[in-house]
Amino acid sequence: MTNIADILNLENPILRGFLFYNALLVVKCMAMSVLTARQRFKSKAFANPEDAALQNVKVRTDDNVERVRRAHLNDLENIPIYFVASFGYMLTNPSVTLALNLFRAFTAARFVHTFVYAVCVIPQPARGFSWAIGYFITGFYGRTNCLSFPSLI
Amino acid sequence: MTNIADILNLENPILRGFLFYNALLVVKCMAMSVLTARQRFKSKAFANPEDAALQNVKVRTDDNVERVRRAHLNDLENIPIYFVASFGYMLTNPSVTLALNLFRAFTAARFVHTFVYAVCVIPQPARGFSWAIGYFITGFYGRTNCLSFPSLI
Amino acid sequence: MTNIADILNLENPILRGFLFYNALLVVKCMAMSVLTARQRFKSKAFANPEDAALQNVKVRTDDNVERVRRAHLNDLENIPIYFVASFGYMLTNPSVTLALNLFRAFTAARFVHTFVYAVCVIPQPARGFSWAIGYFITGFYGRTNCLSFPSLI
Repeated sequence: MTNIADILNLENPILRGFLFYNALLVVKCMAMSVLTARQRFKSKAFANPEDAALQNVKVRTDDNVERVRRAHLNDLENIPIYFVASFGYMLTNPSVTLALNLFRAFTAARFVHTFVYAVCVIPQPARGFSWAIGYFITGFYGRTNCLSFPSLI
Repeated sequence: MTNIADILNLENPILRGFLFYNALLVVKCMAMSVLTARQRFKSKAFANPEDAALQNVKVRTDDNVERVRRAHLNDLENIPIYFVASFGYMLTNPSVTLALNLFRAFTAARFVHTFVYAVCVIPQPARGFSWAIGYFITGFYGRTNCLSFPSLI
Repeated sequence: MTNIADILNLENPILRGFLFYNALLVVKCMAMSVLTARQRFKSKAFANPEDAALQNVKVRTDDNVERVRRAHLNDLENIPIYFVASFGYMLTNPSVTLALNLFRAFTAARFVHTFVYAVCVIPQPARGFSWAIGYFITGFYGRTNCLSFPSLI
């Protein structure tokens, strides 16, 4: 049994990578709010009457705003569960190289996903492929954690 | 005061249960993407023009797709806050039996919620009841954590 | 290098504040479900046919329900990433006063955000301002974490 103090240790490169790449993902999610606001002002499409009134327009939806919102919702569907799964994975005492490369791949895939979905729309399978990389990494963590910490169900 | 090293310890059954059941919940959330995709292809109802074009259809919404998406959104509303609340609860040094049974009850309730909402629709109160079990467990954690770690507000 | 055992220690006021304020935020998010249900019954606007049938009405949307749901979605966009960012921030060994005041400011800002968005609608910039406080605190954590735990990207 690994001593958890060797894992939750600020000299452990896996913990440092976990904190660094998760901070990048947090900043990426935050960027979605800016992208949404930018599209809302560009197309004058606001969701709240009090916001629309400030621009002398009526509440309406707009395809480009909805596209950014779908990209944001996709983040909410995929990133919080990744945080939890990767925390558990870190405690399974994985190899440093594999763990850091999975953090990098997930983070890069989510940046690409947002870019091809909501910044500069690129034909499929760019979006599906970048989504799938993140999905399978989270799934690999989920499987590893279930097998590493069996409980009497 | 409990030593936290006794809690964050891979031989502690509560930590092992925390990691195991959270991994199951992560996998359950992931399944929502498969359920949504399955309904989208079945009813040929896609949210993005580039996806609809691949199937030679127009963007449209469909009641069965929206139902799965509501179930998924309900997960996003309930499961991430449960993760945070249960992490805090684990640090209050609860009884092993109670903690593991709450993990099991929450996890089972969320699986049932998805099943009766989006896989095989069963009349109320099946959905409300399974939702409420998860809700009250999270509320119990929230209350326990507020009382266990008082801060000068 | 700080010893992580000095941070993840139940006598550390930062960890206690982290757990206490996060529990308050969890309870605040839970309140959104009650606010949504209250509006749904008040305006008899339900999302599921089986719920609407129990009240002898048809499925429909309602502006007041949608307003509460937007406030809830805003929580989902902002609070889970805050949890992750503040966990990393706690491990950067910040000053106790600053850390606790940031926890307090974020928590208060999100309570105000919900109040002015979905309970008692107050003209802008009340909502924008309370949202921005939370947003910039999360951004400050993200920046601090990226600089404190550099990884070879």
